[in-house]
Amino acid sequence: MSKQKRFFLSEDEIPTKWYNIQADMVNKPMPPINPKTKQPLKPEDLFTIFAQELSKQELDQTNPWIEIPEEVREMYKYYRSTPLVRAYGLEKALDTPAHIYFKNESVSPVGSHKLNSALAQAYYCKKEGVTNVTTETGAGQWGAALSYAAKVFGLEAAVYQVKISYNQKPYRRSIMQTYGAQVTPSPSMSTRAGKDILTANPNCQGSLGTAISEAIELAMNTPNCKYTLGSVLSHVTLHQTVIGLEAEKQMAMAGEYPDMVIACFGGGSNFGGIAFPFLRHNILEGKTTRFIAAEPASCPKLTKGVFQYDFGDEAGYTPLLPMFTLGHNFMPANIHAGGLRYHGAGVIVSQLLKDKLMEAVDIQQLESFKAGILFSQAEGIIPAPESCHAIAATINEALKCKESGEEKVILFNLSGHGLIDMTAYDQYLSGSLQNFEVSDEDIQKNIAQLEKVI
Amino acid sequence: MSKQKRFFLSEDEIPTKWYNIQADMVNKPMPPINPKTKQPLKPEDLFTIFAQELSKQELDQTNPWIEIPEEVREMYKYYRSTPLVRAYGLEKALDTPAHIYFKNESVSPVGSHKLNSALAQAYYCKKEGVTNVTTETGAGQWGAALSYAAKVFGLEAAVYQVKISYNQKPYRRSIMQTYGAQVTPSPSMSTRAGKDILTANPNCQGSLGTAISEAIELAMNTPNCKYTLGSVLSHVTLHQTVIGLEAEKQMAMAGEYPDMVIACFGGGSNFGGIAFPFLRHNILEGKTTRFIAAEPASCPKLTKGVFQYDFGDEAGYTPLLPMFTLGHNFMPANIHAGGLRYHGAGVIVSQLLKDKLMEAVDIQQLESFKAGILFSQAEGIIPAPESCHAIAATINEALKCKESGEEKVILFNLSGHGLIDMTAYDQYLSGSLQNFEVSDEDIQKNIAQLEKVI
Repeated sequence: MSKQKRFFLSEDEIPTKWYNIQADMVNKPMPPINPKTKQPLKPEDLFTIFAQELSKQELDQTNPWIEIPEEVREMYKYYRSTPLVRAYGLEKALDTPAHIYFKNESVSPVGSHKLNSALAQAYYCKKEGVTNVTTETGAGQWGAALSYAAKVFGLEAAVYQVKISYNQKPYRRSIMQTYGAQVTPSPSMSTRAGKDILTANPNCQGSLGTAISEAIELAMNTPNCKYTLGSVLSHVTLHQTVIGLEAEKQMAMAGEYPDMVIACFGGGSNFGGIAFPFLRHNILEGKTTRFIAAEPASCPKLTKGVFQYDFGDEAGYTPLLPMFTLGHNFMPANIHAGGLRYHGAGVIVSQLLKDKLMEAVDIQQLESFKAGILFSQAEGIIPAPESCHAIAATINEALKCKESGEEKVILFNLSGHGLIDMTAYDQYLSGSLQNFEVSDEDIQKNIAQLEKVI
Repeated sequence: MSKQKRFFLSEDEIPTKWYNIQADMVNKPMPPINPKTKQPLKPEDLFTIFAQELSKQELDQTNPWIEIPEEVREMYKYYRSTPLVRAYGLEKALDTPAHIYFKNESVSPVGSHKLNSALAQAYYCKKEGVTNVTTETGAGQWGAALSYAAKVFGLEAAVYQVKISYNQKPYRRSIMQTYGAQVTPSPSMSTRAGKDILTANPNCQGSLGTAISEAIELAMNTPNCKYTLGSVLSHVTLHQTVIGLEAEKQMAMAGEYPDMVIACFGGGSNFGGIAFPFLRHNILEGKTTRFIAAEPASCPKLTKGVFQYDFGDEAGYTPLLPMFTLGHNFMPANIHAGGLRYHGAGVIVSQLLKDKLMEAVDIQQLESFKAGILFSQAEGIIPAPESCHAIAATINEALKCKESGEEKVILFNLSGHGLIDMTAYDQYLSGSLQNFEVSDEDIQKNIAQLEKVI
């Protein structure tokens, strides 16, 4: 008899609640700080830029389960559950005794997990009478998701796309425009934040931190407009827990439980999304699953950054967040994994890392694409450059199992497909792609500047 | 209670047999003819270029059900069943009482239905000791599928990609190369067929007919090498019936039966794939479902071609096929739906159209993209330019239902996604895309040449 390869939930098994790990954490994340008053943030302080319900979710350290609104759940049903797949092809290619599973978020209509939060954010904005939303995007996965979600709920969307990605990945811009969004490369001359940066450095290729500043500024200056964010913040990660909650049920269908859960790491939302529902069992029941965040070696906030209060954006518009950071003006190298080019980590994952409840590894660009090619040929799906980092970390662990002969169960999140990133694969295959080293000096320089912040 | 949006089959409900409609047709397709002997083709005549089992399937007019090999079925399970989706979003956007369903073949790892036959063809080649396969590809959907299928079964793949697509869609070339295939733009100087065409017309942008000639020539001149084809031929359509057979079960889960089945039309395999299992019930049980093939107005073999014996390729390497054709040297306009740029129709669909068991409509390029944008915004999935033709035809029928107030059930095949075709969407959105008219004079000129063929 053949072994089952994919596991699905029926529509009525799709989670009805998101999981808020903050409620179960022994050491709660420290509060975000209002940079002007130096006081802990209250939800009301966020109302000017975020929908009220999202602001409340952001700071909720009490309720472990948050109801998924019916309207959001109905939209989830168009692509969820996503399949849990047993990666027999990859296991065979590695000749490993490990059992490798992946949650395939690339089947979402926009090609990544980002839609899980985009739908929620657009829904709450609509419900509260908002008519326009702004956001930033790196590689464009988030921008595409928000553009479509805005269309679903009848909102106008304006997206600032990091310039390097805007140029490297013109197809993503077209996708956002096909969904009806307005897309601007960042830094741009349309905001003060953008102008300041371009004045100082006319050739600036942008970063998520800069694009966030621009999107926030536009939201603040536009009537009936809110800002939305694709990662980092706790409410974004909250929405992404639908991934792990589904995976938990699907792993049970497969009759297994993960020894390791692995995801790539930009701001932390796809990582937290798949990890937290399982981490819950470590916290509450003493399970010993390992949680491994795979970040790019060229933007190593988890492995080389410091835990400190810092701004979430380049211009300093956001509250101060207690995070692992490289400094908010750290300009990451132009790797193709645009979604991982961010200086900091969300407050929840930062606290968890500080408390050693999770681990982090760094992956070089060339290693990530090598892993992506192997996975493409073994499983047929071409992964996003971001997801390639999770695959590389998975391969490393699976090869350790091969050495030790251990039949460990590894679950990783395939956060998105790489079909819009073929230029990167092309460069890898032709040998023109390179690694980027970030010098300790650069990191120290940026971190030193942080001292002045609070 | 919310209505179910997607319908899946469990792995053990995936069809175990393909459906061979030739066995049930009252008027069988006329036989392919050997151009040299002018005699009806026998399977052995095809053995030089095709795997033997595929050659037998091609001419089988007796067995209605062909067993799907276990190895192929195991690979199907990585992406099949594909979802049957109720297009509530599109229905709402059109304000139609019609019930619109689509079979979402875009979720295959290679992004289209093409993998259904690629896996089968690669499997039979491998089983018969073949080491190398060649093929042609237009937009690259088939080339990507064959490249991955070849990798799965340990074969080397060489793909001739129509030059216009090679240049318009560089990402598809990269995808094929990521899967490990060798890709050459056609016409090329690597074959006699290519040289002849380039000598006559150095700027020739290629066509499927030309690329087929080149791939066949390479197969004939390479030891242990077979040619594979992505559409047109009866065995390819046979493999694609897995789509309709699944859809039949899934429509039953939804409690409905289609009044219309619609698919885009290049050579006929995605159309036949979804249509034939339902058409069977028209033939055997007197059901009255309509079957509508949507072809591009610039390559109108079904609506403006003649039914006549013609070659399947530009150079005349193939047997003569009884088909609706525009003439084998008809050079289609450079529309973005590269997979529909083919001069002829498969022998089964040609006979069915002749017998009025199916219908055909032609769709202009601008209309197809308008439909694609509407669908993208309503359902989130950006369709392939080819699939846009099916969507446009579906919209036309759904709007007729709106006028008449009829609650008809329409099923169409979403043959693939358009993520590699964003340049085309870009051009449409910026207003630089155009329609292409094909003059009756051109058609008559090509058809007149046919008279000499047999």
